[in-house]
Amino acid sequence: MSVTTPLGFRASGVTAGLKVSGKPDLALVINDGPEHAAAAVFTSNRVAAAPIHWSRQVLSDGRVDAVVLNSGGANACTGPEGFHNTHATAEKVAAVLGLSATDIAVASTGLIGEQLPMEKILPGVEAAAAALTEHGGADAATAIMTTDTVNKQASWTSAANAEGVSYSIGGMAKGAGMLAPGLATMLVVITTDAVVEAEGLDAALHDAVRVTFNRADSDGCMSTNDTVLLMSSGASEAFPDMAEFTAGLTEVCATLARALIADAEGASHDIAITTVNAESERDAEVVSRSVARSNLFKAAIFGNDPNWGRVLASVGTTDAVFDPDQLNVSINGVQICRNGGIGDSRDLVDLAPREVTVEIDLNAGHATATIWTNDLTHAYVEENSAYSS
Amino acid sequence: MSVTTPLGFRASGVTAGLKVSGKPDLALVINDGPEHAAAAVFTSNRVAAAPIHWSRQVLSDGRVDAVVLNSGGANACTGPEGFHNTHATAEKVAAVLGLSATDIAVASTGLIGEQLPMEKILPGVEAAAAALTEHGGADAATAIMTTDTVNKQASWTSAANAEGVSYSIGGMAKGAGMLAPGLATMLVVITTDAVVEAEGLDAALHDAVRVTFNRADSDGCMSTNDTVLLMSSGASEAFPDMAEFTAGLTEVCATLARALIADAEGASHDIAITTVNAESERDAEVVSRSVARSNLFKAAIFGNDPNWGRVLASVGTTDAVFDPDQLNVSINGVQICRNGGIGDSRDLVDLAPREVTVEIDLNAGHATATIWTNDLTHAYVEENSAYSS
Repeated sequence: MSVTTPLGFRASGVTAGLKVSGKPDLALVINDGPEHAAAAVFTSNRVAAAPIHWSRQVLSDGRVDAVVLNSGGANACTGPEGFHNTHATAEKVAAVLGLSATDIAVASTGLIGEQLPMEKILPGVEAAAAALTEHGGADAATAIMTTDTVNKQASWTSAANAEGVSYSIGGMAKGAGMLAPGLATMLVVITTDAVVEAEGLDAALHDAVRVTFNRADSDGCMSTNDTVLLMSSGASEAFPDMAEFTAGLTEVCATLARALIADAEGASHDIAITTVNAESERDAEVVSRSVARSNLFKAAIFGNDPNWGRVLASVGTTDAVFDPDQLNVSINGVQICRNGGIGDSRDLVDLAPREVTVEIDLNAGHATATIWTNDLTHAYVEENSAYSS
Repeated sequence: MSVTTPLGFRASGVTAGLKVSGKPDLALVINDGPEHAAAAVFTSNRVAAAPIHWSRQVLSDGRVDAVVLNSGGANACTGPEGFHNTHATAEKVAAVLGLSATDIAVASTGLIGEQLPMEKILPGVEAAAAALTEHGGADAATAIMTTDTVNKQASWTSAANAEGVSYSIGGMAKGAGMLAPGLATMLVVITTDAVVEAEGLDAALHDAVRVTFNRADSDGCMSTNDTVLLMSSGASEAFPDMAEFTAGLTEVCATLARALIADAEGASHDIAITTVNAESERDAEVVSRSVARSNLFKAAIFGNDPNWGRVLASVGTTDAVFDPDQLNVSINGVQICRNGGIGDSRDLVDLAPREVTVEIDLNAGHATATIWTNDLTHAYVEENSAYSS
């Protein structure tokens, strides 16, 4: 269950020396074809890192032959020298692998505002190229970790079609803490051996990201480097039904998104906030996200306090369609707020488990959306004050 | 320097028994006239507390004779019974003071979702009425405190006019932590003995609140109960120049807003985020507020880390007019980010003092706006997980 699960891909992860810890910090994933279609979603942050600018250009023709990823430095806010360094990294990969630099995507994560040590990156690329194997997915997933405590991988395999052929989708992700709409400090590489052209990949990826990564909102912050890259080798020779492909891709993205939330910096609760009976899916998402971004609500959950007043106070800041006197809120299955007022006893709510579910009933329609977030803890403050990213 | 500094007002603060601590929890401010003009700004939260619904009605004719305020219970999300209790409180004040209930504003702060103990409120009103004096401003300011560590008061006095007459403006505020645009868990009462009709008060109050309370954003959360009430007695018989009056009112509001930020729950730094050279004041405010709401930036300041990358990452999420390559950021006077990249050494920035200034130069125009906020600390998490509000 990794980026090397689908046929046609090799990967590696090596130690280039970017991290002071000496842990692996440079990953390579190569698409051996026969197809080389690709699509990507990048951060919408207008202060975008050098590798974002580079990779947007690479993706513009829908072809990617390989992606090189480094942890230990974001290469963001680094000016012309930073862009030059990204370019040089892609050129190095191209030279070592006999490819064209314009087909090499680059992704970086780590501290903003420092130049990458190219004297370590370039030998690292050589080592990573030498280490490429068809079983290298886990090594690659480990090399892109920053404050992650575990590597994150997922895969999905289709049923066999009429010709007895199946295809698979595999993925890896890094990120812990800075998830938000439009993505944040999140690097994701997804591979498939299905035969899908770039346009099909693009449509499926946007559909999948919209309801997965874009609904994982750990702390509302958005990074300068976020990238979700999808590459197709076509090696299975299976032409998928696109609805089925999109469903499989969404499952892989959802698994990775949940893994990111579960590993968010310093969290002690994973919180799924679902708004039901909204007039529109947009309303449901806005309401759930509003609660997910309330520091007061998140601190209350850390303290095992089912403080529904803070839920209502957040809902009340939105422009969603609802009548305040018809709002219901349940936490872990107990309807503690009914018709905008006091419901069942808050003493019935057990917040000891890590998993928390919040359901907000707007009584205004039939649409639903869930946002996944975390509680606000001492450890979050500690990690984000001590760790300079 | 209190609500009883202007002529024509009496105030009191007593212990009605709402707080388990036994501290004062009920305040009364009466306008003895001869004028009784008033204006107010209420929370824009659509989940508004019962006293908000009541007081909006009271203010609709521009006349307020007295305001009764309680801590120890927000009377929010309390349904018809909650509204009935607010009404009964106003009726009690009216009966004791010989006034009409429709001229009595009510404000409450404390836990959401619990009914007020009317058997304590009503005797408390009698005690507060009996305690009214022309020197009661400080007692009233103390009785509205919740997690505040100090009471907050301010005043301003005009120069004498051609007839040798001056007028004054006095105010009190409570609130610590939940400040945000549109106000949050903030109760403010401002008095003046200038002769100003309700329409003039309303215009001046909106101008003053826009650049003071609405730019104090401690944690981005918005409460169900926020109220800023301005009352004029006309007792000085001075007819003010309205530009001068608005300036004085803004000064009182700014002093109180700064006091709220300085006393925010668990903060260790007060941060003034100023955006300069913006194309519009709206852009400047949006950019400053975006940074003020970044948990990552606020946690970095707690850790004395001048992490300008997190400033740029927040700026990049806005739609303000700027070129990422022309952004400059200074923290405490050191320009650590220049032209969107690395500037002076971050080692030059001293974040030991409580006061922190951040200046973001958009290089896009001539407009400026400042947002005041706090850092994100262990103590914030502690107070907001342990304290159920």
